[in-house]
Amino acid sequence: MAGFQLPLFIVGFILFSAISEASKCSINGIPLVRNISELHQDNYGRGGLSHITVAGSVLHGMKEVEVWLQTFSPGSYTPIHRHSSEEVFVVLKGTGTLYLASSSHQKYPGNPQQFSIFSNSTFHVPVNDAHQVWNTNEHEDLQMLVIISRPPVKVFVYDDWFVPHTAAKLKFPYFWDEECFQAPQKDEL
Amino acid sequence: MAGFQLPLFIVGFILFSAISEASKCSINGIPLVRNISELHQDNYGRGGLSHITVAGSVLHGMKEVEVWLQTFSPGSYTPIHRHSSEEVFVVLKGTGTLYLASSSHQKYPGNPQQFSIFSNSTFHVPVNDAHQVWNTNEHEDLQMLVIISRPPVKVFVYDDWFVPHTAAKLKFPYFWDEECFQAPQKDEL
Repeated sequence: MAGFQLPLFIVGFILFSAISEASKCSINGIPLVRNISELHQDNYGRGGLSHITVAGSVLHGMKEVEVWLQTFSPGSYTPIHRHSSEEVFVVLKGTGTLYLASSSHQKYPGNPQQFSIFSNSTFHVPVNDAHQVWNTNEHEDLQMLVIISRPPVKVFVYDDWFVPHTAAKLKFPYFWDEECFQAPQKDEL
Repeated sequence: MAGFQLPLFIVGFILFSAISEASKCSINGIPLVRNISELHQDNYGRGGLSHITVAGSVLHGMKEVEVWLQTFSPGSYTPIHRHSSEEVFVVLKGTGTLYLASSSHQKYPGNPQQFSIFSNSTFHVPVNDAHQVWNTNEHEDLQMLVIISRPPVKVFVYDDWFVPHTAAKLKFPYFWDEECFQAPQKDEL
């Protein structure tokens, strides 16, 4: 009997892994009320970031709004980027700086304005304005709830503030949508 | 000189009040980064409620998403209602119950399902499903961030769970949008 127990355990584990992998991207079976501290968090290859999709298009079937919980360790930051999603931030912890270039009518973002952000503050980024958020605090994490419209987000990334808008690079699907994003099936006709 | 000081102070106060009243509904001059604890909060005639529009359509010019911070004292609750806005809740403090009737295909909501909600949980309400949130905790406030699409919200209110969908009463503009809502100007042609 003992000879069968190990193989059965292994088979079970492999089956469980396969089911977990398959269901990670499935909307079916996700409970309506979810404990945020039990949701998947990852840095998606970006140093200093912790991202949780609290309610998302790709993961939870949202169609019009999406909510993230993001934590930036001291010194970490977002890319310089723009998108046609409306975006609202609610700062839960820490302090930092918003860099915002409201110059989409010019050829490139140019020098951004700086705004101090702090715990219990809120701000929104005008649609298509290039922006970047930094945790400029040396000692404390910067934690924010981020709300966007038009999910999943289509992000245009700038290497610096003087890259022409037309040369910003499209990143779609975005980091946290990559694994589970499925392109809409094309009609064969 | 002393004779002029009091009248000038009063005149100044009256002028300040008039400007405050006029600018309460004006998007101009609102800082990009706002301290949530300094934003206007009110119960809008609903016992046990504290509502703050963190980022709104009527107040801040949002077009696609709106964010509220709402606190329900023990025993207080929302009306039974539905809307075509997507809605995401993030529970910041306390516990309570979500009542949800996913039966828009029937003539009335009917007996709702019950879901326990708790600090650090999230849930979303399917579009057009009748729902109600209660603070069922006798001792603690229930505080939530609420995110909706398609602002300003158009709410249909039910007196009970067996009122036909067609008899639910439209409340628009909603309580916190009433004072500053301006109907779109009609084209004369």
